[in-house]
Amino acid sequence: MADAAPTRDDVERARATIGDRLLRTPLLTSRTLDARLKCELFQRTGSFKSRGALNKLSRLTAQEKARGVIAISAGNHAQAVAFAAAAEGADALVVMWQGASEQKIAATRGYGATVDLEAHDPASAFERLAQLQEETGRTLVHPFDDPLVIAGAGTVGLELEEDAPDADAVIVPVGGGGLVSGIQTAIGTRTRVIAVEPETSTALHSGLEHGEPTPVTPTSIADGLNAPFAGRLPLEICKDIERVLVTDDEIKHAFRFLYERAKLACEPAGAAAAAAWLSGKIDAENTVVVVSGGNVAAQTASAILAAP
Amino acid sequence: MADAAPTRDDVERARATIGDRLLRTPLLTSRTLDARLKCELFQRTGSFKSRGALNKLSRLTAQEKARGVIAISAGNHAQAVAFAAAAEGADALVVMWQGASEQKIAATRGYGATVDLEAHDPASAFERLAQLQEETGRTLVHPFDDPLVIAGAGTVGLELEEDAPDADAVIVPVGGGGLVSGIQTAIGTRTRVIAVEPETSTALHSGLEHGEPTPVTPTSIADGLNAPFAGRLPLEICKDIERVLVTDDEIKHAFRFLYERAKLACEPAGAAAAAAWLSGKIDAENTVVVVSGGNVAAQTASAILAAP
Repeated sequence: MADAAPTRDDVERARATIGDRLLRTPLLTSRTLDARLKCELFQRTGSFKSRGALNKLSRLTAQEKARGVIAISAGNHAQAVAFAAAAEGADALVVMWQGASEQKIAATRGYGATVDLEAHDPASAFERLAQLQEETGRTLVHPFDDPLVIAGAGTVGLELEEDAPDADAVIVPVGGGGLVSGIQTAIGTRTRVIAVEPETSTALHSGLEHGEPTPVTPTSIADGLNAPFAGRLPLEICKDIERVLVTDDEIKHAFRFLYERAKLACEPAGAAAAAAWLSGKIDAENTVVVVSGGNVAAQTASAILAAP
Repeated sequence: MADAAPTRDDVERARATIGDRLLRTPLLTSRTLDARLKCELFQRTGSFKSRGALNKLSRLTAQEKARGVIAISAGNHAQAVAFAAAAEGADALVVMWQGASEQKIAATRGYGATVDLEAHDPASAFERLAQLQEETGRTLVHPFDDPLVIAGAGTVGLELEEDAPDADAVIVPVGGGGLVSGIQTAIGTRTRVIAVEPETSTALHSGLEHGEPTPVTPTSIADGLNAPFAGRLPLEICKDIERVLVTDDEIKHAFRFLYERAKLACEPAGAAAAAAWLSGKIDAENTVVVVSGGNVAAQTASAILAAP
C-alpha cells in the first residue's frame, strides 16, 4: 500500500518527536531585503534535512533500528541521516559515488555513518542502493518521498506560524519537494507557500506537468536542489502550489546579497528563495524567505563571491 | 574635566535608551567550535557599533542635535553614526579619506550621512576632523573613548548575562577597546572577559604597557581592529584584563571555520575572538565568542576563502 500524505497532525507529532534535539532556528529580519529569513543553515548538520531524518529514525521499531538504515545522497541528506542514526543508536550506510565531494564524505563519516563509494556515478549508485538494501534488510530513508520525512520538514512551518504570524507569503527552495511539502502541509491552508526551482532543475515543474514523478537532468549551481525527480507525495501535496523559476545568475546574485547584506554563509540552494524574492517575481507584503542550508565548500563560495 | 568611566548602571541605562531600536542579537551554539557565538554581525549596520552610537546620539541635547554630529571612520563606526543620527533626527558628517572603501562610503551615505573625502590619508583626516569640528560646532562621536559609547557597547554583556548565565569566559575582539570595556563594565566582576588583539594591531597591549594611549601602526587583515591607539577610558577599565594575541593566519583560519562550520559571513575583525579560542590559547569550559561584525567586501571574503 502506498504511503498516505502526512497531515498537520503528523507535523505536530514530528515536532514532539524531535523535541529539543534539533534547533528552533532563528528568524532574522533583513531591512535591505524587506523580508524575514528563516535560517535553516544554522540547523544541526547545516540544513533543514535533519528534521525529516530524525523524525523518520525516531519512528523505527527496535528491530528496524537493529538492522540499521540506508540512504543515497552526496549532500545534505547524507549528513542528516548520519546524524539522526547516531542520535537514535542505529547504524547508517550512505551510498555515494566516486567524485562526490571529499568534504561531504568526511562530514557524513564524521557523524558516524559508513559511506559506500563503489558506484561510479549517480545512476549506478541507485542500482548499488537497491542491491545493498536487498542484501542487508536496512530501512531506506528517502530524502523526500516519505510521509515522516515530509512531516519532519514541516516543523519549519510550525515555527514560522508562531514566529511570523503575520506572514502572507513563505518562499521555499525546492529540490525533490520534501521541505515545501512539509511547510505546505503545516501552514498552506492559511499562508501562501511559494515553491522556487532553478530553471535548470525543474523536478517539481516537470512532475506536475506530467502528473507523476518525471526524470529530469538538473544542472543548477544550486546542487542541493538537483533532485532527479520530485516525489509522489510532494507532487500530490503541491499540486496547486504557486511556483516560480529562477536562473542560476539570480541565485548567484542572491548568494552574494545574503552574504554581504544579511551576513549569511548559505549554500547556493539556500539562496534560491531569496533569488525569487529579489527578482521581483513575487508580489507579497510580509514575506518569509527560507534559507534552507549552508553546506558549501569554501572554494565554491569563493568563486561565487569573486564574480560581481 | 575628563569623562569618568561608565558603571554597570550606565550600561543598564543604555539598554533602556536603545530600547527596541536595535536587535537583541542571537546567541548560536556551535558544537564543532565547542562554544556559543554572540552574533553581532546581525546587529543593525552589521556590527555592535550601532549600540554605542545610538546611546550617544540619544543623549544629546536638542541644541546639540540641531548642530549635528561629526565622526571619523572608514568602517563600522561610520555606518553606526550615520544610522544613529538618522534615528535621532540629527545631521551626521563623517570624515573619511581618499582610498577609503567605496562600499563603506556608499553604505554610510545610504544611511543619510554626508561623507567628507578631502583628506588624503588617515593622519590628515584627523586634522580635517579637528578643523571641521571647530568650524561647525558639531558634537564628536568618538568610536571608543566615550562613556556613552562604551556603555552602549556594554549592552552586549547584559544580553550575554541573561542568555548564557553559565558562561565562564567571554572572548572579545579588541580595536580601540570600546566593546571589551563595555562588556567588562557590564559583567566583568562575575565573568572572565578576555581581550583579543592581532599581533599586528596592538593598541591595547601597547597602551597598557605604557600606562597611557600609545600610537601604534596597525597592519592586521582584521581592518576593523586597526585602531591607531586605545582610548583612555578603555585603558582604565581594562587595566587588569586577560589578554591574548592572535596572528593574521589564525584570523583567516577562524574566518574560514566560521564560514564553513558556523555558516557566519563575518568580517576578519569579527573572527579574531574565534581565532583565539581555536588556537587553544584560552583554557575555559563554557565559552562565549563574540563575533563583532560582518562588514566585509565580497572580494576580500573571496580571497580569504580561496586560500585553504
